[in-house]
Amino acid sequence: MNRRAAFTVEPWCIRETELHLEDLGSTESVFALSNGHIGIRGNLDEGEPHGLPGTYLNSVYERRPLPYAEAGYGYPESGQTIINVTNGKLIRLLVDDEPFDLRYGHLDSHERVLDMRAGTLRRQAEWRSPADQAVRVTSTRLVSFTHRSVMAIAYEVEPLHETARVVLQSELVANEQLPEGGSVDPRVAAAMHNPLQALEHDCNGNRITLVHETRHSGRRVAAAAEHVIEVPEGVKVSTNWGVRPDWGRLTVTATLRPGQKLRLIKFVSYGWSSQRSLPALRDQVAAGLTGAIHTGWDDLLAEQRQYLDEFWARADVEVDGDEELQQAVRFALFHIIQAGARAEQRPVPAKGLTGPGYDGHCFWDTETFVLPVLIHTAPRAAADALRWRHSTLQKAKDRAATLGLKGASFPWRTINGDECSGYWPAGTAAFHINADIADAVIRYHGATEDDEFDREIGLPLLVETARLWRSFGQFDRDGWFRIDGVTGPDEYSAITDNNVYTNLMAQRNLRAAATAASSYTEEAEALEVDAEEISAWRQCADSMFIPYDEKLGVHPQAEGFTRHAVMDFESLTEEDYPLLLTMPYVQLYRQQVVKQADLVLAMQLRGDAFTPEQKAANFAYYEKLTVRDSSLSACTQSVLAAEVGHLGLAYDYTIENALTDLHDLHSNTTNGLHIAALAGTWMSLVAGFGGMRDTTGTLAFAPRLPEGLDRLAFTITHKGLRLRVETDGKQATYTLSDHERNPDDELEILHHGDLVTLKLGDPVTLAVPPSPTHPRPSQPYGREPLRR
Amino acid sequence: MNRRAAFTVEPWCIRETELHLEDLGSTESVFALSNGHIGIRGNLDEGEPHGLPGTYLNSVYERRPLPYAEAGYGYPESGQTIINVTNGKLIRLLVDDEPFDLRYGHLDSHERVLDMRAGTLRRQAEWRSPADQAVRVTSTRLVSFTHRSVMAIAYEVEPLHETARVVLQSELVANEQLPEGGSVDPRVAAAMHNPLQALEHDCNGNRITLVHETRHSGRRVAAAAEHVIEVPEGVKVSTNWGVRPDWGRLTVTATLRPGQKLRLIKFVSYGWSSQRSLPALRDQVAAGLTGAIHTGWDDLLAEQRQYLDEFWARADVEVDGDEELQQAVRFALFHIIQAGARAEQRPVPAKGLTGPGYDGHCFWDTETFVLPVLIHTAPRAAADALRWRHSTLQKAKDRAATLGLKGASFPWRTINGDECSGYWPAGTAAFHINADIADAVIRYHGATEDDEFDREIGLPLLVETARLWRSFGQFDRDGWFRIDGVTGPDEYSAITDNNVYTNLMAQRNLRAAATAASSYTEEAEALEVDAEEISAWRQCADSMFIPYDEKLGVHPQAEGFTRHAVMDFESLTEEDYPLLLTMPYVQLYRQQVVKQADLVLAMQLRGDAFTPEQKAANFAYYEKLTVRDSSLSACTQSVLAAEVGHLGLAYDYTIENALTDLHDLHSNTTNGLHIAALAGTWMSLVAGFGGMRDTTGTLAFAPRLPEGLDRLAFTITHKGLRLRVETDGKQATYTLSDHERNPDDELEILHHGDLVTLKLGDPVTLAVPPSPTHPRPSQPYGREPLRR
Repeated sequence: MNRRAAFTVEPWCIRETELHLEDLGSTESVFALSNGHIGIRGNLDEGEPHGLPGTYLNSVYERRPLPYAEAGYGYPESGQTIINVTNGKLIRLLVDDEPFDLRYGHLDSHERVLDMRAGTLRRQAEWRSPADQAVRVTSTRLVSFTHRSVMAIAYEVEPLHETARVVLQSELVANEQLPEGGSVDPRVAAAMHNPLQALEHDCNGNRITLVHETRHSGRRVAAAAEHVIEVPEGVKVSTNWGVRPDWGRLTVTATLRPGQKLRLIKFVSYGWSSQRSLPALRDQVAAGLTGAIHTGWDDLLAEQRQYLDEFWARADVEVDGDEELQQAVRFALFHIIQAGARAEQRPVPAKGLTGPGYDGHCFWDTETFVLPVLIHTAPRAAADALRWRHSTLQKAKDRAATLGLKGASFPWRTINGDECSGYWPAGTAAFHINADIADAVIRYHGATEDDEFDREIGLPLLVETARLWRSFGQFDRDGWFRIDGVTGPDEYSAITDNNVYTNLMAQRNLRAAATAASSYTEEAEALEVDAEEISAWRQCADSMFIPYDEKLGVHPQAEGFTRHAVMDFESLTEEDYPLLLTMPYVQLYRQQVVKQADLVLAMQLRGDAFTPEQKAANFAYYEKLTVRDSSLSACTQSVLAAEVGHLGLAYDYTIENALTDLHDLHSNTTNGLHIAALAGTWMSLVAGFGGMRDTTGTLAFAPRLPEGLDRLAFTITHKGLRLRVETDGKQATYTLSDHERNPDDELEILHHGDLVTLKLGDPVTLAVPPSPTHPRPSQPYGREPLRR
Repeated sequence: MNRRAAFTVEPWCIRETELHLEDLGSTESVFALSNGHIGIRGNLDEGEPHGLPGTYLNSVYERRPLPYAEAGYGYPESGQTIINVTNGKLIRLLVDDEPFDLRYGHLDSHERVLDMRAGTLRRQAEWRSPADQAVRVTSTRLVSFTHRSVMAIAYEVEPLHETARVVLQSELVANEQLPEGGSVDPRVAAAMHNPLQALEHDCNGNRITLVHETRHSGRRVAAAAEHVIEVPEGVKVSTNWGVRPDWGRLTVTATLRPGQKLRLIKFVSYGWSSQRSLPALRDQVAAGLTGAIHTGWDDLLAEQRQYLDEFWARADVEVDGDEELQQAVRFALFHIIQAGARAEQRPVPAKGLTGPGYDGHCFWDTETFVLPVLIHTAPRAAADALRWRHSTLQKAKDRAATLGLKGASFPWRTINGDECSGYWPAGTAAFHINADIADAVIRYHGATEDDEFDREIGLPLLVETARLWRSFGQFDRDGWFRIDGVTGPDEYSAITDNNVYTNLMAQRNLRAAATAASSYTEEAEALEVDAEEISAWRQCADSMFIPYDEKLGVHPQAEGFTRHAVMDFESLTEEDYPLLLTMPYVQLYRQQVVKQADLVLAMQLRGDAFTPEQKAANFAYYEKLTVRDSSLSACTQSVLAAEVGHLGLAYDYTIENALTDLHDLHSNTTNGLHIAALAGTWMSLVAGFGGMRDTTGTLAFAPRLPEGLDRLAFTITHKGLRLRVETDGKQATYTLSDHERNPDDELEILHHGDLVTLKLGDPVTLAVPPSPTHPRPSQPYGREPLRR
């Protein structure tokens, strides 16, 4: 794993002080801005050089055929791929007719700063043209949290030494040329390289509008831009406008003396719909633009900061003793709120809106990794993400019917709710996603007591997923309820019987459905739930088969797993990883090798199903097998390592996970950030060193710090209360504040297993008991995490 | 399953007395002629109407890309598809300028006869043109067994009532237009619809030659035709010739009075090569043609009959009491010898050369179903098929290396030896093919004592497949040797642990490798086999894990199988079958449902590994689960049904299997015959009612007849001796004859378990003991075989 120190370490910013063109792909992802609806990669204002240009609108995708060498019944025939929509962030600069292009001339300085309190990406460059004309370029961009359809850029240029004629070209460009590569299927490439068909282009004085439509998926996309130009008094400015089906351009020309600045503020509004008419959409972006201009640049900035101030007040995590970790956890939270804030009943994709990786699809990790963070920091965003799932319930019911099952079978990967997985053993067979969605519903309700949501949204999700489990599983001759032929989180095994993670999560799902249906009797009746069904769910849950290997004293990840050959890790070198690129499935599946936490994740999410001894033994056993070829592993391992007493190892995993994108550890950050791994950074600290568990009724904490960390403090929202937890490793203080309800409210929590009642404004400080000690477990040869 | 009575029932012919255009596709397969090198479908001489035009040369295929929605390491990137080569069987007729086309005018009579002793397809039609000109058309065609490169047709036309001007156009046509349909992938369709690029076309007086080449696979194909024209004295004949890159044509015109015949004898020679130059190939077909003309039509016919007389003398199976079965088993043997006779180190594809089904690929069923027939009826053809496998050994070793394994991993489906399977769980994971190949080697040697073959061909095949098993399996903590993550014959399960069939066949493979390596020490040393390796193979074999379900008293097909849910067959209707077209794999794999005999096949091929009680219990258990969605099931079930005492059921399965193609029971005979199922017909009679087993040293028989069959007699070749077995169900007579070696030779056999020594010319008659009786087992709801 390569490590780069591309950014300075500071608490609230990600600052890059030197530009390395070869890193543009990954830095564009790191510097991406988004509000969950619009996403723009951190491409340079002038468009090129670039790693990968990217402007995304949540759920604007194109359909494409999914080809199979040998097809099977129920295979999805068409996939979905997020597309690069009209680029509104482009501002080209010419200095005395020389294009400002960092590949030419000389760059005296270049700095980009992602400011996580301001919610902006700032850039400053001092550049000398090949003709030695020196200019300073400054830009600040934002994607507004408060104006959902709006992004804006303030762009300034000034000559440094001599009078210069500068030309700015601010553009909207559709069907940008993308770098070659990606799919080898020419049909896919064709669909993705020119995805937008022009419907309308317009230039009305100072406002440019482009409206396009995707060829197959019926997405209409509109973008409109308007500008404010500022120059020192007396400087003459010429402007002209042009528009064509695939581009629109404002050109601004001025001759500036040193110290004189030309400032261009560009407001862009985006809208899309598969339903609304072209005029409606055109009007929508016009209105968005008008609203943004009405607010103005300075107030957009101010609103942005205020939105984030509120977010940090309820969500910040403070770490003393490791500045890099402090920065990383804020980076993580910043991108999570960017991904979720204004998604508003649209999915939170695996890459957020920071890149085209995984085709822009949403997977199980949204519910299992991202939503737990949002539930405790931005519960409305979490509710919206689940409302999106609920909006796809009919598709999931249809899919279940196609598969010959009852209830709902949610897609392994999707944008619009239809299954897009082209390899069913690691797609459709990963039924655990249904229990993962149920789990997020359960946790959301546990943390918010939002009964209205639970009744309207939670109940149907719980009921239909419970129905799936009941129809998919079966009672065997000994009365056990078995779930055979599924794939758990670990993708180096597939189509296994009684995957412990799946069975435990399904058990929780079935029980929660029974409880909810018993609580909301009227709504349950409308879903045709009767007493027989409720009792059947309870019976399935109570009889759930959980395999256990008595001889080894550990849980097999799935039935028979511990009898498989242990992979010969000693024979492998670094070049063999990730194994999926160098080894066929037929080898991976038959051996004991774990891509990502599976049984260990079960121990985090269903800790109640394991004794402390089992946790310690299982953890040690799976450490030896887990190669972390997935970014969804180190965080889970850190949480369990902390729980079973390996605080140093937990710290190592925390750091490895926290630097996934900042250090581009998987060499694929260029395709977008690993949003779930970012959520894992929060989890490492809050669930790992904070010991927080929210899955068993009473909110539990077990703070403990590894050597090297001096203090950890975090704030979460729970049941409308704000709870701050702070520990120096010796004691922990719990402070309840920010009450939205009855001022007499109390909160019962567990501190290292002891029940404590917290009262508003009455901090409680408790001692931290010593950690259990076990010998540090070993990892597969060559896969040890770096020691912190 | 639909049943058609398209053919009259007679012992030596398949006769169709009425033409049904809608059945053309399947009758073209039934009436296909082949010698294993050339295959021509039974298309009408005039080319159309047709079901599917087809002329094939063994191993002439085109490469095509294999697309994947989600690719994985080690997936084959290109596939192979057999192509329709230059059509040489086309003879068009015009009667007073009206084309002889059965869709027009009036057909007074039409008969086609596949004569299994003559080795010809004869046709006679009486047709009136739309202008009411009546003619009789007679044609006889053959693909020569004695001239490997030659097919020939004798074509006659005579006016019946009035003088008529007849024009014959005898053609060679490349890139014939094929019916639409097949693959939805446009690239595949493109490759297959116009597969041949013209290299050379020539017309030298009366000889037409076309040479083509495939675009990607580098197969050069040459075809040459020459004609002999016969007319009554005094009738004037005009001829002219024409040739273009994709066609060549001889036109013959004559005016005939009623009773006068125009006779055209067409000789066609084919050749192909990926190595030899164009001139060499051109000369090769010219030589083939010259040889055929030298022999002449009458002697070609005579040689054909003599070849088949010899075949039937050593291979015939006689059945009294069921004429349909008598006909079917000869039909089966005829097509098996057609598929294998002159393949000569080329594969025997699943469809022979009768159609393009399965892309013309060769699978495991060649070794497991077809070779056992050839081994005992045409051992040299069997040896050649194994020599072909051996010729692909390096590719199989490369494939094993790609998969991270030692030894050789033979392809699941292929033409040239490269893996072409696009769905690895039912392709690469079906490693049993390696043991199946080894099994054929073992049986061939057992039946022939051909030590030279064993040393040169058998040993390397046994050694490299044994190496595969050793590297793929592993010793578990209890000392068992396990083979995990494989797919057995039953394709309704996949990626299972310790499939009993696979493990038992691998055990046999490992032991045979050890024995062979110990016998041929010098050759084994050249393969770097040492004592350690031999002993390791024995240890793997001796420690082979065979799961057993003590509670149910049956063998699970694979570990854990019997704990899966039994499919709810009662909920299914006829339209749900075959299940693979209406149910996703995720449902099939997790349930107890069996597509085709798997554990039951293990009991046939490794009968020594089961007690009689286990066989009875296992058979009854798997009967309830086996839906026979594969044509490779009923024959195996018939063999085991006979062994465990269900003679009536065995008879029912025998008939179902025997009529697979004659009655088009799977509605896909149009794509080619089911060669392995045809082999199964022989197996039902010889291994089923004859009880022959050749897998345990001493050749064993256990003749028994079901009610309805009065007599069964069959001849096999064994150790150079000819053995005839005849039974009326009460007693059985064994006659040894046809000695090629020492006249004192004896043969030890088992008759119902009793050792008997047979001497040349000294028939032994023994009583048949009564059959054990068990209640007739049941099948899945709606899947009972028709009662005979």
